Amino acid sequence: MKTVLLTGFEPFAEESINPSWEVVSSLEGPSSEGYRIVCLQLPCVFGESLDVLLAAITTYSPTLVIAVGQAGGRTDISIERVAINVDDARIPDNKGHQPIDQPVVANGPAAWFSTLPIKAIVSALQQEGIPASISQTAGTYVCNHVMYGLLHALRDKPWIKGGFVHIPYIPQQAAMHPGSASMAAETVKQGLKIAISTALRVEVDECKTGGTTH
Amino acid sequence: MKTVLLTGFEPFAEESINPSWEVVSSLEGPSSEGYRIVCLQLPCVFGESLDVLLAAITTYSPTLVIAVGQAGGRTDISIERVAINVDDARIPDNKGHQPIDQPVVANGPAAWFSTLPIKAIVSALQQEGIPASISQTAGTYVCNHVMYGLLHALRDKPWIKGGFVHIPYIPQQAAMHPGSASMAAETVKQGLKIAISTALRVEVDECKTGGTTH
Amino acid sequence: MKTVLLTGFEPFAEESINPSWEVVSSLEGPSSEGYRIVCLQLPCVFGESLDVLLAAITTYSPTLVIAVGQAGGRTDISIERVAINVDDARIPDNKGHQPIDQPVVANGPAAWFSTLPIKAIVSALQQEGIPASISQTAGTYVCNHVMYGLLHALRDKPWIKGGFVHIPYIPQQAAMHPGSASMAAETVKQGLKIAISTALRVEVDECKTGGTTH
Amino acid sequence: MKTVLLTGFEPFAEESINPSWEVVSSLEGPSSEGYRIVCLQLPCVFGESLDVLLAAITTYSPTLVIAVGQAGGRTDISIERVAINVDDARIPDNKGHQPIDQPVVANGPAAWFSTLPIKAIVSALQQEGIPASISQTAGTYVCNHVMYGLLHALRDKPWIKGGFVHIPYIPQQAAMHPGSASMAAETVKQGLKIAISTALRVEVDECKTGGTTH
Repeated sequence: MKTVLLTGFEPFAEESINPSWEVVSSLEGPSSEGYRIVCLQLPCVFGESLDVLLAAITTYSPTLVIAVGQAGGRTDISIERVAINVDDARIPDNKGHQPIDQPVVANGPAAWFSTLPIKAIVSALQQEGIPASISQTAGTYVCNHVMYGLLHALRDKPWIKGGFVHIPYIPQQAAMHPGSASMAAETVKQGLKIAISTALRVEVDECKTGGTTH
Repeated sequence: MKTVLLTGFEPFAEESINPSWEVVSSLEGPSSEGYRIVCLQLPCVFGESLDVLLAAITTYSPTLVIAVGQAGGRTDISIERVAINVDDARIPDNKGHQPIDQPVVANGPAAWFSTLPIKAIVSALQQEGIPASISQTAGTYVCNHVMYGLLHALRDKPWIKGGFVHIPYIPQQAAMHPGSASMAAETVKQGLKIAISTALRVEVDECKTGGTTH
Repeated sequence: MKTVLLTGFEPFAEESINPSWEVVSSLEGPSSEGYRIVCLQLPCVFGESLDVLLAAITTYSPTLVIAVGQAGGRTDISIERVAINVDDARIPDNKGHQPIDQPVVANGPAAWFSTLPIKAIVSALQQEGIPASISQTAGTYVCNHVMYGLLHALRDKPWIKGGFVHIPYIPQQAAMHPGSASMAAETVKQGLKIAISTALRVEVDECKTGGTTH
Repeated sequence: MKTVLLTGFEPFAEESINPSWEVVSSLEGPSSEGYRIVCLQLPCVFGESLDVLLAAITTYSPTLVIAVGQAGGRTDISIERVAINVDDARIPDNKGHQPIDQPVVANGPAAWFSTLPIKAIVSALQQEGIPASISQTAGTYVCNHVMYGLLHALRDKPWIKGGFVHIPYIPQQAAMHPGSASMAAETVKQGLKIAISTALRVEVDECKTGGTTH
């Protein structure tokens, strides 16, 4: 049975919950499509988050790894295209570290592209009525850090696909951030299921634009 | 048994559904709190929409009338404060009419304020984790037209409370409008129930800011 | 010689300048088109702002009064359509008062419409390459308070036109509010000149949509 | 005398002007600070744009190359941090080509980081009251294509600094795109001068956050 490793984050900044973990943790277990999902909570800490993730990859030997993070203010499920080799923290992480313009991996390449079929995932989500898009930047905080470190670790394991998905606030968070968009946990959950099954099914990504002019 | 008249609109512009009707129509019937909800679909047409609404008020003698409309692009459930006496249509209505700077009611007052406890409704929604805010403008299209006409008709019936609530796209719509915010129908439904029970319960509105500097 | 009374505000909130006064004060004096501009700074205080404005109308007997205010975050010069009879302060004014849901004028009508040719002004601005639009709400703070009070005072003086114009931050303010739009003082100045000459020239406003669906 | 090569683009999409060229072309010539600026217009065409740019680098032997492009909708001068090795055109370029998920340089690295002192430039701009920020993505269109190709070409010429700057619409464009932010050409011009002199002056970039959480 194939194993899918799905990660969410602990809360950070002033939030008391992190929607990525709320949703991810509800997906643990075997699926009807013949694979099992292992869920893992990552600390919102530079370094440690990656240590925890990479240890779990060794333990569970997944064929697919999708890390999920909160993007407060975004309106849709955004499938990240690329992670860059830089930590530049606008706010301290949960251990108080605030690296500025440090590499995620010393002497690593400037960036790694997601190995998920990102265009096919966006198509599948939209077809099911779930707002989704390609994102050209995962930021420069712990989310980008985890995505970069994950893809760097998988660079010589092409049989494991990996990538990152950003999700909006859930409504109860947006209720405290007037003006912010949100997405119901149920919608996000359905979206992650579609993302997983699409990633397991699609070998060659769709040739369909997901670009931006700037 | 008290009657609540709840209205939604038919689809307009390029939409094939209108979330206001999708949600409103699911609320028809008696509630466990001792009132019944009567649902009514309004045409997205200047004039006709009001004719249909005012006839239903005569038929059903409600104690509360809440008209609900789609505000594509908004992020939360917005409780309208005021309707103004002007029709200024950016796009034609569903019958092809496009009034510009015409009064809703000739010689009517410049505006009518909602008679709902708008601040209490926002508080109740936020407390239940549903994004909500006061809106200072209902626009100048059929939504504002209906809100103005409703409040004008209720001016000498102080025993009937009335107002207007704008709701975001639902996800399946936002999936076709990249970048737009949305709210799950289930969340909106829960929100409208809270708005109704708050409006029936609260006699004197809360004194709590819901204003904007511009 | 016709007199145009042009007002700007003193700074409020955490700002050390108010772009409305920066620009307005640079327009003092006679114009080449045969009128003179009298500039007046209003305190950002409920009540007092109106006292100062109404006294100046008595003193100068203008044929046109345009009040200008800062709308931090807006992208263009917005010509306000309507002022409503409510003070609902999100933040205290410069004297520490924070009225909530109080009328501007007790027993006054619910709203007053601008008596400027608002559509013609937007057209003229756009034609000169200056971003502009109709705004359907002036908020519920001191700007709306001044606009309402001005139009209420002019209700029996139809020979004096009056209205309100909101302007964006100027660049030096936006430099401290990352992500906020701005407009150069020079562009705003040119815009206000166009607004004034259009208001003096146009008797009957253009019939051109400036509405919104919500 | 040091040479600075400054490029702007021809108009694209439905625009009749491109603010990058409007401003860049006004900066041609010697500066009072002892360097000369050579201006170059690039076609908005994949491939050709780079051919023109790289030929000019050979011709003029600049010590600094800054490519400037339009980012319609952005509010400030954004200094790009990184270019990625992908062309994914949302709209065809000016020759009708629309590459999707093609590399800019076959077998090139995934990304190149700007070699400009990007943090110092943002600081200098903000200090002069000009809205500015670091951008974590230059998109996937011709701007990113040029930035990537430029930095790839400069990879073994560390004595030439290079990078990319995105600028907003100018007001006359925003007047036709209601709701869009803009910046006066004069402000952008002043900003580019500051960016150039900062890039020539600063050897080691500031350690100051310019990151985003997502």
